[in-house]
Amino acid sequence: MQEGRTIFWDDGICTIDQTRLPGEFVEIRIEDVRDLVEAITSLRIRGAPALGAAGGYGIALAARRSRFNTALELLMEMEAAGAMIKGSRPTAINLSWGVDRVLRAAAAKESAEDMRIAALAEAEAIAEEDLLVNRALGRNGARLLDDGASVLTHCNAGRLACVGWGTALGVIRSAVEAGKRIEVYACETRPLNQGSRLTSWELSRDKIPVTLICDGAAAYLMRKRKIDAVIVGADRITKDAVFNKVGTYSHALSAKAHGIPFFVAAPLSTFDAQHSEDEIIVEERSADEIRRLGDAILAPTDVPVWNPAFDATPMELVDALITEKGVFRPPLMPPI
Amino acid sequence: MQEGRTIFWDDGICTIDQTRLPGEFVEIRIEDVRDLVEAITSLRIRGAPALGAAGGYGIALAARRSRFNTALELLMEMEAAGAMIKGSRPTAINLSWGVDRVLRAAAAKESAEDMRIAALAEAEAIAEEDLLVNRALGRNGARLLDDGASVLTHCNAGRLACVGWGTALGVIRSAVEAGKRIEVYACETRPLNQGSRLTSWELSRDKIPVTLICDGAAAYLMRKRKIDAVIVGADRITKDAVFNKVGTYSHALSAKAHGIPFFVAAPLSTFDAQHSEDEIIVEERSADEIRRLGDAILAPTDVPVWNPAFDATPMELVDALITEKGVFRPPLMPPI
Repeated sequence: MQEGRTIFWDDGICTIDQTRLPGEFVEIRIEDVRDLVEAITSLRIRGAPALGAAGGYGIALAARRSRFNTALELLMEMEAAGAMIKGSRPTAINLSWGVDRVLRAAAAKESAEDMRIAALAEAEAIAEEDLLVNRALGRNGARLLDDGASVLTHCNAGRLACVGWGTALGVIRSAVEAGKRIEVYACETRPLNQGSRLTSWELSRDKIPVTLICDGAAAYLMRKRKIDAVIVGADRITKDAVFNKVGTYSHALSAKAHGIPFFVAAPLSTFDAQHSEDEIIVEERSADEIRRLGDAILAPTDVPVWNPAFDATPMELVDALITEKGVFRPPLMPPI
Repeated sequence: MQEGRTIFWDDGICTIDQTRLPGEFVEIRIEDVRDLVEAITSLRIRGAPALGAAGGYGIALAARRSRFNTALELLMEMEAAGAMIKGSRPTAINLSWGVDRVLRAAAAKESAEDMRIAALAEAEAIAEEDLLVNRALGRNGARLLDDGASVLTHCNAGRLACVGWGTALGVIRSAVEAGKRIEVYACETRPLNQGSRLTSWELSRDKIPVTLICDGAAAYLMRKRKIDAVIVGADRITKDAVFNKVGTYSHALSAKAHGIPFFVAAPLSTFDAQHSEDEIIVEERSADEIRRLGDAILAPTDVPVWNPAFDATPMELVDALITEKGVFRPPLMPPI
């Protein structure tokens, strides 16, 4: 794995298979757009900023693999690949953002060869920028955390969710880098356990103290122990709501009830100022994510399930939006 | 299995092994107090009212198996068994209540033989009463649910948690019996998934419509769909709080934020008017309940975990306490 990067280009898209952690650390190289779509759908690659980079690299991959040598034919093939990639996870905005940004860069060129070069260069730029953006966002957010703070987080908005560093966990890493002692409570994040599998693994490797809890225990934790802040990432931020992993809204309500500040850490690429909550389609995932786990049968095989991947937290419950351009206190929003 | 009963006496304590559901329906017969303690600790038997019956039957079992033939020696052995049984799950009050009630009935007798007879008779009385109490409680609570209501519940407060019928699910069953159409959302209830494994199984068998959700999705469900009430059971009700499966408090906060009534269904044997929230020890269970599931590794094997089995919901968040003696609106409490 390239130093500090969880996704990079090496004759294909190289990344960690996040479905295998923490049991196994498996690096994969994706050499085909269909394999990328499978990897995104099955969450081998996940996390809004990482999806931005993956979307960009996906277009570069489509360009590289295409047999066409006229600019028009190549662009049509890249656009078809873009539609496939964007459709793989509709709620996360960064995926579309990465795809569109690379398509635009390619479309500005006149020859197929220049388009291939421009596509890869733009995808690399997205990935490099993500690291810088997360570093800036981390520094901005770290000021909100005091030395000795206990922080609750949900899902994984860490290095694994980005090209590196992380958004919510980036803020925590930046605070630790600044010499503050930070203690993290990670919610396991059902049904796919990104909190237990990824966040607790990431933070343990960095020697940042982390305690794992069930999602349903978060409110009681706030009642019983000192929690100074909740920090989460985001998959899309509309003008009125933050879409993030299901369970986030519940934590926001509990934080409000206990007078605990609720922070969202996300790059500007996550913002969608054109839309409001009601216009966004929330991805519903397979019932078997809840009915089974590995070999274990957790529920009758035919019981109906409601399994939204995300929920929406209204902006009134958000105390601060932490971005690379500074900290914004809603109703104040970053200029997009 | 005896008709309508999930725990009964037949030369030992007969019940269903709840850890094997819904994959397998396995009936077990417990013939030794140590096996009973193991069955309670590992949650083969669980649910406050079922634990009341199990505690009572446990004392009858100790009396039956004892070699002593003087009243004093036998009583001492029964009391030792009672201490072991009570210690197996400290938070659920019904367990102690069942043990103490049978011990008192036995202690009133003068010969070892009469004590043995009295112990079993009292344990049988507890179990029989539980069925009647749940039926009465169900009828009282059913009036709170309108035809067409959608109800959210947590954990399993059903037939499996009791001798039969159920508390929270008993209210739902009574409403259905009265001809009302009730739709249930069952929270999976991490870490041991009593909601997915037991509640969705129980309700499916009864043909009561049930949809399974992750615990963290409950608040978003209240935001997106019509939820008319939250109904849960209880493991102990002090003068100021309801102790129930961890996750309950979170649902109570979400219900309050959405203006949805929050109901607790429990027999009077669950009430502990002598104590307040801060005096109750909440059982903390093994970290591996969260770190592993079957063959699946969900977290690094050494990550610290906070795993309280229960949480406490302050009485201000409770709209009604549904008991066999009627419905009480806090701060009004049933006379104990």
